[in-house]
Amino acid sequence: MKMRELSRASGVPVPTIKYYIRAGLLEAGEHTSRNQADYGEKHVERLRLIRALREVGGLSVATIGEVLTLSTGTRGGTAAAMGQAMDAISRGEWRDGGEEIEEVRALAKEVRDRLRAEGWLFRAEAGALEGLARALIRGYEAFGEAPEVEGVVRYAGPAMEIARREFAGRQSGPLEEGDASVSWAVLGTMMFEPVILALRRLAHEHLAIEQLPADVREAVAGDEA
Amino acid sequence: MKMRELSRASGVPVPTIKYYIRAGLLEAGEHTSRNQADYGEKHVERLRLIRALREVGGLSVATIGEVLTLSTGTRGGTAAAMGQAMDAISRGEWRDGGEEIEEVRALAKEVRDRLRAEGWLFRAEAGALEGLARALIRGYEAFGEAPEVEGVVRYAGPAMEIARREFAGRQSGPLEEGDASVSWAVLGTMMFEPVILALRRLAHEHLAIEQLPADVREAVAGDEA
Repeated sequence: MKMRELSRASGVPVPTIKYYIRAGLLEAGEHTSRNQADYGEKHVERLRLIRALREVGGLSVATIGEVLTLSTGTRGGTAAAMGQAMDAISRGEWRDGGEEIEEVRALAKEVRDRLRAEGWLFRAEAGALEGLARALIRGYEAFGEAPEVEGVVRYAGPAMEIARREFAGRQSGPLEEGDASVSWAVLGTMMFEPVILALRRLAHEHLAIEQLPADVREAVAGDEA
Repeated sequence: MKMRELSRASGVPVPTIKYYIRAGLLEAGEHTSRNQADYGEKHVERLRLIRALREVGGLSVATIGEVLTLSTGTRGGTAAAMGQAMDAISRGEWRDGGEEIEEVRALAKEVRDRLRAEGWLFRAEAGALEGLARALIRGYEAFGEAPEVEGVVRYAGPAMEIARREFAGRQSGPLEEGDASVSWAVLGTMMFEPVILALRRLAHEHLAIEQLPADVREAVAGDEA
């Protein structure tokens, strides 16, 4: 396909596509004449991945470059790219908020040991682990309390159950190697976070309403259409 | 206590406290002389709540005014204020993203009926419900698919389990009426969201690593200190 068609298929404007080619994120097309090049499905997939990493993951072009270097490698490159992409996204989200780095590391280690004791497998350097430690420090700090690993443990079972259900339903997603798999993982992780959080808020409301006397409960959460 | 002490106790600067008094968010202190007023624990609690709603909930001073009008009322005002605060926070987060409002409403109704069939109690106008519908539309849209209520149902059980565990552990939190309860609910809801999301990401990593051959698995998620 031509550049214009590639732009339509990927939803990325032509000047942006040209910029990605210059920046080394996207391979140039095969030249069919002096001013025209041919692009294929691989280019569409790559552009969709770059878009997901930028728009949904909030990553910079430089960071995307590092992630993509991994994904276009040998077998196993896709898994490495998925891990790197999620690490970079986690690092961006749980950016340094003034916590003592020693405290973050000590707590991350404590959380890691605790989750490993429950059989969890993850890389020691997983970005979400440090993010988890930072989030835990901030959470307890808001209540004027010191962080406790128990605050993680109570969520571990349900979080694993969520992940299992997501993996069980993933027959529909691409499991092969390649950019589409990385896009699928990034989008699936990020886009459904607000769904889970909204459900938790509704569940809080349910538990609060459940405690009301029957007649009040009816009036608050009645069956109006 | 004096204004200066109130500022220290609440972590809110003196000029900001004066602004909140002028804006009607905080009651003036009891005048003890022409230039001095006396403040109590109630003022500290109120300021902590305003801070939580602004800094953690991202609410405007005007919206906070509406929420606080409810909380300083009759019995039941605290529950109403909690609901209103979370609704306002949800509306801010899942702000209109170009979804067709009819589609949002139709999907919200579908989700509501489905969750009610599972025994969930919540107000028909709960802010998280509309947020959930918007999040669902955006999530499926990212994959080029139409939203499906099934995408919510698979998360419902684990989300309720998370909420139950949180409620079970809340003996330590204030359960009485008053501003401290509203702060506690807002902070508890918001500050632990990143903890849950980080755990889900680690759980995804666990499930991916679990599928690797035993020797590779060892190398990736080994027991290094």
